[in-house]
Amino acid sequence: MNTVNMSFPGKVTVGMGCASQWIDFCKNKDCKKVLVLSTDPIWDAIKPQLDAAAEAKLKVKTLQYAWPGEPTTEYFNTLHKEAERFGPDAVVGVGGGSVLDIAKLLAALSGRRTAIEDCFGNGKLQPRKAVLVCLPTTAGTGSEVSPNAILLDAKDGEKKGIISPYLLPDATIVDAELTMTLPAKITAETGMDALCHCVEAYMNVNANPVVDTFALRGIVLIYKNLLKAVKDGRNRPAREAMAIASMMGGLCLGPVNTCGVHALSYGLAGKYHLPHGLANALLLPAVMEFNKPKAAARFSEISRALGLETTDDSVCNAEACIDAIGGLSAACGIPQHLAEVGVKEEDIPEMADMAMNVTRLLVNNPREITREDAIAIYRAVY
Amino acid sequence: MNTVNMSFPGKVTVGMGCASQWIDFCKNKDCKKVLVLSTDPIWDAIKPQLDAAAEAKLKVKTLQYAWPGEPTTEYFNTLHKEAERFGPDAVVGVGGGSVLDIAKLLAALSGRRTAIEDCFGNGKLQPRKAVLVCLPTTAGTGSEVSPNAILLDAKDGEKKGIISPYLLPDATIVDAELTMTLPAKITAETGMDALCHCVEAYMNVNANPVVDTFALRGIVLIYKNLLKAVKDGRNRPAREAMAIASMMGGLCLGPVNTCGVHALSYGLAGKYHLPHGLANALLLPAVMEFNKPKAAARFSEISRALGLETTDDSVCNAEACIDAIGGLSAACGIPQHLAEVGVKEEDIPEMADMAMNVTRLLVNNPREITREDAIAIYRAVY
Repeated sequence: MNTVNMSFPGKVTVGMGCASQWIDFCKNKDCKKVLVLSTDPIWDAIKPQLDAAAEAKLKVKTLQYAWPGEPTTEYFNTLHKEAERFGPDAVVGVGGGSVLDIAKLLAALSGRRTAIEDCFGNGKLQPRKAVLVCLPTTAGTGSEVSPNAILLDAKDGEKKGIISPYLLPDATIVDAELTMTLPAKITAETGMDALCHCVEAYMNVNANPVVDTFALRGIVLIYKNLLKAVKDGRNRPAREAMAIASMMGGLCLGPVNTCGVHALSYGLAGKYHLPHGLANALLLPAVMEFNKPKAAARFSEISRALGLETTDDSVCNAEACIDAIGGLSAACGIPQHLAEVGVKEEDIPEMADMAMNVTRLLVNNPREITREDAIAIYRAVY
Repeated sequence: MNTVNMSFPGKVTVGMGCASQWIDFCKNKDCKKVLVLSTDPIWDAIKPQLDAAAEAKLKVKTLQYAWPGEPTTEYFNTLHKEAERFGPDAVVGVGGGSVLDIAKLLAALSGRRTAIEDCFGNGKLQPRKAVLVCLPTTAGTGSEVSPNAILLDAKDGEKKGIISPYLLPDATIVDAELTMTLPAKITAETGMDALCHCVEAYMNVNANPVVDTFALRGIVLIYKNLLKAVKDGRNRPAREAMAIASMMGGLCLGPVNTCGVHALSYGLAGKYHLPHGLANALLLPAVMEFNKPKAAARFSEISRALGLETTDDSVCNAEACIDAIGGLSAACGIPQHLAEVGVKEEDIPEMADMAMNVTRLLVNNPREITREDAIAIYRAVY
């Protein structure tokens, strides 16, 4: 295997009702001024925590995240300016992927004059001065354990990544209680996003036995629990399993990352601003089908892990795997065709052009995706 | 599930030939004076690295670990005194469990006047001043990713644990190349120790779905690779899989820890100074058999993960699991009876008394182990 480098949050806490642990964590780190970034409707859920933090003599400033869709560099700068006026020694992010990404960047740039545009790419950040705590409220993004953050560059409208070990939280607190009120549609879409993180890591050219551990575990947990969480949001074991699965997917992002599905979804998201998870879910079975000639053995291993009926024929097993994943997506109420979500067939070539720019993910795909292939994949799910 | 707290090394690197990365890591951390703790015959293997470190303008002091069996507090103090004369800003441990445990403690107490006896127990250490890097040379201990260190207290002859997040390395570098020359006997014994870490975490009363991920993965990797590594030490994929499995076992130690097997092995080790892995291996199937009434469903899950033939009867599946693990141990050349390793039957009650003192692990066992039970288990494997 190739050498794999993994970075982890300093501390990971997982459990129902553990969310308030950020208060003690900040106190133990001698933090005085805590910036809490969150969004509606989560403020209501964490109100008792904010009160407890004030009682614990932490100076807390709340910052409202309110941006529809992917956050832009401009919006980040607005929040950053407000954060810097407060001058936090800890940043606590409570939210979905976008909120956590912004919280990570606010902490990383706290007390620094670096322009956000100079941070795009890998390893551009300086060591972080502020303590960072992330609490995910979707099961989903995996941002709570990944060294990545994604912003839309206001200058050219492109989604760009910032990757740095200084984006890993000092503490990640996974309390599935915070996900219990997530609507079925967002549960389904974010859950399928987590599944993509795992499947794309497992079929990745950079796949390796360490990260396979997280990927396979995530796939199994999602396969067994996503539909339950979608059908009944109050199903605690299912919510908890999904929260863990999402974290497993997030652990795949740093060392291996995604491949064809996320690359092609950039085309969809760029043109139509579809929710990130929905765009990925729409593409996952078709990209797996496209990858089958190169990844049948891997898909066959997934089939075995899922307990599907398997044979000695890895192509058969791979088909069972793709069918099972497509079936899960459909059962969760995810549309299965681009036409259903308003995509126009004539836009497909332009979407393919956009996807072709995402070379950093395309190179991870087990089978080369040409522009023509991308068009064919979009057409296959049209 | 109960809330689980996990701490990780800051960075984990895994790969064949990656060992020399400690040099860059220390340089990047601005370290100037590096203490390297290792032992024969590993010095030969890392000689090129020591030369490269000197060329990279690191001031390196090598410290020889040479203690037969479990390290004592007295021996630690001898090494600590020598280390402090050098005054390292980084400690690099390259070795098996004992070497890594000592390296972790040397780093933790570097620049501190704390007596080692005052550190026993949980959470007694102050924040670490020195950078700590661990490179395991057995696949085995898991110490490279655990917050634990074990010493024999010279005052009362008891094995005692020191547990603290400040014992987690800043970097863990897992290079299976360093394990390629490990003799078959040590490969087998340390490999079975790693298997115990995983099985004991999985059948533990504190088992939880996050740590299950590591435990199950470790069990599967060991089941598929240990015998290969024992039979042919040059089998690179098997060595690599074992190195990863050992790390998985180590990740179980902090948040869940071991239970009945390790508790009873303290009795064996205390009385007979058997190698730690051998003592555990001798006891594992018998303790699983004892736990079967409470843990059949868990063992059944292991059977499925191992790809054994399973039925709807979880007790049957559990028996298949225990047989498979006992069979692996025997195939690896591990003695299956205490009499074979020189244990006297009349000492069993005294061993049981010693095991009964290990309450911190006994409470983790899924079925209560009384003194009489302990005697019966020792007799069962006599």
